[in-house]
Amino acid sequence: MGEPDLRKQAEASSVDDDFHVFDTTLRDGAQREGINLTVADKLTIARYLDDFGVGFIEGGWPGANPRDTEFFARAQQEITFEHAQLVAFGATRRPHSKASEDLQVKALLDSGAPVITLVAKSHDRHVELALRTTLDENLAMIADTVSYLRGQGRRVFVDCEHFFDGYRANPAYAKAVVRTTVEAGADVVILCDTNGGMLPPQVQAIVATVLADTGARLGIHAQDDTGCAVANTLAAVDAGATHVQCTANGYGERVGNANLFPVVAALELKYAKKVLPEGALAEMTRISHAIAEVVNVTASTHQPYVGVSAFAHKAGLHASAIKIDPDLYQHIDPQQVGNTMRMLVSDMAGRASIELKGKELGIDLGDDRELVGRVVRRVKERELAGYTYEAADASFELLLREETEGRARRYFRIESWRAIVEDRPDGTHANETTVKLWAKGERIVATADGNGPINALDRALRVGLESFYPELAKLELVDYKVRILEGEHSTESTTRVLISTSDSTGEWSTVGVADNIIAASWQALDDAYTYGLLRAGVEPAE
Amino acid sequence: MGEPDLRKQAEASSVDDDFHVFDTTLRDGAQREGINLTVADKLTIARYLDDFGVGFIEGGWPGANPRDTEFFARAQQEITFEHAQLVAFGATRRPHSKASEDLQVKALLDSGAPVITLVAKSHDRHVELALRTTLDENLAMIADTVSYLRGQGRRVFVDCEHFFDGYRANPAYAKAVVRTTVEAGADVVILCDTNGGMLPPQVQAIVATVLADTGARLGIHAQDDTGCAVANTLAAVDAGATHVQCTANGYGERVGNANLFPVVAALELKYAKKVLPEGALAEMTRISHAIAEVVNVTASTHQPYVGVSAFAHKAGLHASAIKIDPDLYQHIDPQQVGNTMRMLVSDMAGRASIELKGKELGIDLGDDRELVGRVVRRVKERELAGYTYEAADASFELLLREETEGRARRYFRIESWRAIVEDRPDGTHANETTVKLWAKGERIVATADGNGPINALDRALRVGLESFYPELAKLELVDYKVRILEGEHSTESTTRVLISTSDSTGEWSTVGVADNIIAASWQALDDAYTYGLLRAGVEPAE
Repeated sequence: MGEPDLRKQAEASSVDDDFHVFDTTLRDGAQREGINLTVADKLTIARYLDDFGVGFIEGGWPGANPRDTEFFARAQQEITFEHAQLVAFGATRRPHSKASEDLQVKALLDSGAPVITLVAKSHDRHVELALRTTLDENLAMIADTVSYLRGQGRRVFVDCEHFFDGYRANPAYAKAVVRTTVEAGADVVILCDTNGGMLPPQVQAIVATVLADTGARLGIHAQDDTGCAVANTLAAVDAGATHVQCTANGYGERVGNANLFPVVAALELKYAKKVLPEGALAEMTRISHAIAEVVNVTASTHQPYVGVSAFAHKAGLHASAIKIDPDLYQHIDPQQVGNTMRMLVSDMAGRASIELKGKELGIDLGDDRELVGRVVRRVKERELAGYTYEAADASFELLLREETEGRARRYFRIESWRAIVEDRPDGTHANETTVKLWAKGERIVATADGNGPINALDRALRVGLESFYPELAKLELVDYKVRILEGEHSTESTTRVLISTSDSTGEWSTVGVADNIIAASWQALDDAYTYGLLRAGVEPAE
Repeated sequence: MGEPDLRKQAEASSVDDDFHVFDTTLRDGAQREGINLTVADKLTIARYLDDFGVGFIEGGWPGANPRDTEFFARAQQEITFEHAQLVAFGATRRPHSKASEDLQVKALLDSGAPVITLVAKSHDRHVELALRTTLDENLAMIADTVSYLRGQGRRVFVDCEHFFDGYRANPAYAKAVVRTTVEAGADVVILCDTNGGMLPPQVQAIVATVLADTGARLGIHAQDDTGCAVANTLAAVDAGATHVQCTANGYGERVGNANLFPVVAALELKYAKKVLPEGALAEMTRISHAIAEVVNVTASTHQPYVGVSAFAHKAGLHASAIKIDPDLYQHIDPQQVGNTMRMLVSDMAGRASIELKGKELGIDLGDDRELVGRVVRRVKERELAGYTYEAADASFELLLREETEGRARRYFRIESWRAIVEDRPDGTHANETTVKLWAKGERIVATADGNGPINALDRALRVGLESFYPELAKLELVDYKVRILEGEHSTESTTRVLISTSDSTGEWSTVGVADNIIAASWQALDDAYTYGLLRAGVEPAE
């Protein structure tokens, strides 16, 4: 397998070629239900992945759809990759033809990607049923396509689709595929658990045997259908694989792929194996969330290492122990992966949680047991009514300050408001809102229209308050979530709104609960502005 | 460990005592961020878990909070368990006291639960730092509490907290805890990876060694902080553990616990080990979703085996192969776990996906290539505008029927509508909506108020249409979701609303997209009613 040209190419990359972290978010990840990436999205994600320091970024299948073709053209023009090499994905040539004349293969070369991953069948049944050719012709297709692309100066990896099932059905043929691939000049042979049905001991045994029998450089591509993709990937590494294919946040077809983040975290923190550039791991949480934003899928709050809840403690027993030493209930220091420990405020939380949360916010409640008890009671009451302070830190801080300072911070007071939304016969919409409010002793009546009723309310509030509080101009609503909660009686339901707001330096969340989406939004907006003014150091007016 | 009384008790249960499926959703699962269970919720979940056939249901910590105390009282009165035994969770007695005089221990007995799980420290550092006692006193606390509860006729399991870290720090002490526990009469010693930092090979090695050295019956309790809780649980079983602690949907502290569903599915389908009553596995998807409804956490669409996306195929390559044989891209038949294969309609989907989806809906498009092409184009256009048909089957079916039948099904036509929401100075809200519409050649003007503007719109529509379409009375809005989508230019945003509607026989989802939450809701409602009337067999009027 000594391929001097390719080794030299790889040396140009900042990442060691001895172990490959190969990301396929832009190809396999994009096949997740609910993900629909534009070319601009793909370019943004490629930049994040390169920042994070993966060795290879599989960008898509050039030629298979115009978006992927455009991505390769623009990525090479617009991005200066620091760490990663760009990889094009494609298939072996059609049966009984020549790779050099195959249009699909030509599109791979035309992409300009220095590395090409070819998908090849390695399960005899798939060759016959899906590819509809002979086992020998499949080997010929692999050999011809790999050696043609190598001859054109590209580094070639081969994804052996359905390898594990194929190996169990016909080990001799599966190994013949591996040998053919290597002999034709491919650099890494990736064993794929395409339908995701394997468990770690099976993966480990098969990888070890294939490695011993063929001597090929092996990679692993695991799908998560048994919930074991991360463990399967690590099991393959244990057995000698030196190339792991993953996707950011585990996005992928069906259940998803091996999640890049817990895989690299395990390799770096548990195996003490350096697989990312210095300092990259501490960026992991940020990168994970940024990619979730781009793909427009709500980031899983409970993702290992990077989830908002990954180091969030709720049980009273845990909170008491953490007061003594945070390491007692954490397997790593959250800062190693750029995450933070959080104490959750919920009605399960006892006094220890509220005290720690106060400390996190810079409000020491340590001595005042009566005060802490009062806060615990108010949280329990409000959560019973549908509020959630776990997800609304700013609303909790306002509640806490109200109790410690003896009164609520009030910059303005609402008298009433009205929102009108109208669908006109010509199909256009009108949104008009009027608010009546008081600030600094004056009564204000303001009217605004907007893009939807919440936006119109937001604007009317700004129109009314801007001369009193110019700081409000810097605040921006960045996220808006609605949840319908069932009441005690199923005919009544309550609406909970969570709003995220940012200024130039940070972001905070507030909550509102009402029988009415607009009233709930209004409450959350009220808290959001009050907190924004508090952050800006503005003194309350009333 | 031969305990004739306990064995007899266990024989009364329908589940084999040789292998324990132990569920702790109601105790450890309730510690997930965002979960807040009422006693009624806990009773409902206990019924689902018993239906599913787990052997043990850990209901909470009686005495630690009034909700859990009430749960045990009511569960024993209100539920006739078919399969499961109820388990109370608690701690060993306080240092330097007597178990028989410990109020916390008394509360465990008072719960009436036939089985008690005690949490015990097995990591020397935790004994000293968190428990603040000596290593010997910790052993005395375990021995005294276990033997006291055994003397009171209860079966006792012991959770060894932080066992794996403890074993690595001080294996002799960790094993002394196991031996003390068994000698005092505990039936199962559960090795807990409390901070979730372990990987499968470590779990397997330590379980195997402890089993060989102590001969105790071992269980496993794995947290998911490395993303390996399912694999860690199975690794412990591989090493000889015969008791697995899991939670429904993997709910739990921080990242969560080992997910019950992929664990039992692996044991039954991959290990061919019968751990559930006959027929239970086929109820798994239903039970998983039902529990998610009760805890009011959106069910993870990408959960292994039971997720809505678990057998959903999007890539064109997969769709083509599945047209030949569904087994080519699925590791099991989805029906084995009560799930179904779905073809996703998205702009990545090619013709094969649309054809298969049509077939799923009973609309054969096989021959008409021009029609299929038209549908693919419309889907691509609409998804670009923010619609998602993956999550709105009913809206997709209406689109498909419009194309195949040459015109849209129209039961009514909206001329215009207006919604007014008012917050009065006394804090109450008024929601008033007027709709102007046409049905069966007549113009209708209807006004209604409601609980929020969407509800008022829904009511006005019903008021206006009920004499024309009495079938609408049966329709009920069961879920409502809102998502803010960023437009091409970040200042413009689009609102997407998904509505789920049910009649007496089923449930369907529809989508609306607009610059305005009320307008988007209106579109989704329009589709929801149109589809409901179509389902009811009503002929279109216009």
